Amino acid sequence: MTADYREFYRGRAVMITGGLGFIGSNLARRLVELGANVLLVDSLIPDYGGNLFNIDGIADRVQVNVADIRQQSTMNYLVRDRDVIFSLAGQVSHIDSMRDPYTDLEINCRSQLTVLEACRNHNPGVKVVYAGTRQVYGKPDSLPVSETHLVRPTDINGINKAAGENYHLVYNNVFGVRGCSLRLTNVYGPRQLIRHNRQGFIGWFIRLAIEDQTIQIYGDGSQLRDFVYVDDAADAFLRAGASDACNGEVFNVGGDEATSHRDLTTLLVEVAGSGRVQYVEWPAEKKAIDIGSFYADSTKFKTATGWAPTVPLADGLRRTVAFYRDHLDRYTGEPEPPRT
Amino acid sequence: MTADYREFYRGRAVMITGGLGFIGSNLARRLVELGANVLLVDSLIPDYGGNLFNIDGIADRVQVNVADIRQQSTMNYLVRDRDVIFSLAGQVSHIDSMRDPYTDLEINCRSQLTVLEACRNHNPGVKVVYAGTRQVYGKPDSLPVSETHLVRPTDINGINKAAGENYHLVYNNVFGVRGCSLRLTNVYGPRQLIRHNRQGFIGWFIRLAIEDQTIQIYGDGSQLRDFVYVDDAADAFLRAGASDACNGEVFNVGGDEATSHRDLTTLLVEVAGSGRVQYVEWPAEKKAIDIGSFYADSTKFKTATGWAPTVPLADGLRRTVAFYRDHLDRYTGEPEPPRT
Repeated sequence: MTADYREFYRGRAVMITGGLGFIGSNLARRLVELGANVLLVDSLIPDYGGNLFNIDGIADRVQVNVADIRQQSTMNYLVRDRDVIFSLAGQVSHIDSMRDPYTDLEINCRSQLTVLEACRNHNPGVKVVYAGTRQVYGKPDSLPVSETHLVRPTDINGINKAAGENYHLVYNNVFGVRGCSLRLTNVYGPRQLIRHNRQGFIGWFIRLAIEDQTIQIYGDGSQLRDFVYVDDAADAFLRAGASDACNGEVFNVGGDEATSHRDLTTLLVEVAGSGRVQYVEWPAEKKAIDIGSFYADSTKFKTATGWAPTVPLADGLRRTVAFYRDHLDRYTGEPEPPRT
Repeated sequence: MTADYREFYRGRAVMITGGLGFIGSNLARRLVELGANVLLVDSLIPDYGGNLFNIDGIADRVQVNVADIRQQSTMNYLVRDRDVIFSLAGQVSHIDSMRDPYTDLEINCRSQLTVLEACRNHNPGVKVVYAGTRQVYGKPDSLPVSETHLVRPTDINGINKAAGENYHLVYNNVFGVRGCSLRLTNVYGPRQLIRHNRQGFIGWFIRLAIEDQTIQIYGDGSQLRDFVYVDDAADAFLRAGASDACNGEVFNVGGDEATSHRDLTTLLVEVAGSGRVQYVEWPAEKKAIDIGSFYADSTKFKTATGWAPTVPLADGLRRTVAFYRDHLDRYTGEPEPPRT
């Protein structure tokens, strides 16, 4: 299976929810190359990451359907005849989830049920790959973190993402709607939202570096993270979607190296040739939900699918910085209105 | 604290959501004895367990407010000035959750957020004790199950109850709304809903025995469970509510003995002097969500609070059978309409 998972997608009908977002649009590019029939579903809710420029260059080879996945009748229609669904739509801001837990609940829990109920009732043969998150682990008891670590989220977003993941496992086990979850760590690369700083730190740091601004690090910057370049993350989704060995399972999908915030930002400033780093005290409300160091053990997924990250951090940062330098206005200016 | 947790409640303003239900009403009886000012909030949704007869004999010493805890403005008002909230309202049927996951989501996730947001904004000094469930563990890896076991629910109800529990921990840790969760195993006793068989097996078995009907056991009846008499469960809530050592923690609250379905039903038929047991094949859809044997290790809670179960199974069954024999029509006839 590791040799021909790419071949699997030729002519396959695939749907990506959140398909105009960061990982979704990068995955769409890969699927187009592989000859899949690609349907992108995205709500284009402002501030969430969907961006029509993300499909620049492939727009004529994908089908775009603007819709909210909370809408049951729409989803009942859209899931029909799809072979694989990549469930990437979500509210990803921890901070927003603590301000407005209800919207996070609607998007990360209810909407997952909406898609799964649509599949159960209208396309039970489909395979669903869910974008999980390392956030479900919360503050780790030990490192690296494997899938045997307790799920103990430290914010509302992590709780709701855990529920969304578990729905996929139950629908797999009870209703036979094949599904699995990839618990992504810190994915970075081109096409990530960098318009505001509420969707993860790395895209925001990259923007600050490009704009020659100051990157603030809380504490001494010794906390460790692992990073996955978005092409490697897309490859993980392709492998999971093509593999029935993954059904009913959760997998960590993380980078091979643990890197401190200090080393990350030093490297970023060096690669960008601009920006600078400043170390500041932890704000109390950030410290309350901080998880310290985190890096994942992705052995389970590597063993199941043959996946491995291929893009070293320095290369990935170089590509990312180059992309945003070329297209900064598309990611920091006013969002484009949807077109039909 | 173990000596005077009862004294703690004298004159305290306490609210019980699901207060007309099984555990809620038994807890209310204890609180009335202890001199608390008791507000019972219940939606009286048919089939969920709320029953006005449950407060027969204490109705003039409690305040009843019929309300749905999903209603934010109502909850904002009701939580004010309460010292302790016991969060027992919920949808508890596994089966219903698989038929209608959205209602389960609304009641077990959204409504918990509604109560917690009300507390955060209108009574941040309150203590909240949440009724969790052993269902969150799913099929155990090993026995007995302690709190270090993975949370891996096998049905939608278990997933949503896990989310509801986690909200309490996050509101404790991040917003300072003190909270904890008691993961109850199989609670039984007077005032449990026995009108239908979708809320756990033990109440239903008791009804069948009393009515001299046949109790069907799937498989050979060797699967083990532990049982908690409702007075012991109520005592656990009282201790948790009075103890700040419990804040931010989850605790198993289970019985001391693992008992097979075979031994349970044999004992029940003997105690009741009526009913009989029949062993039948597992229905496929039940087997799909069966978890095999389960019994909990409650050491953590015992150590933290001094709690221990006091009512042996035979005694508890005797009291329960006697209660339902006296009041069977109140639990199997038409429900009473709410009165003001």
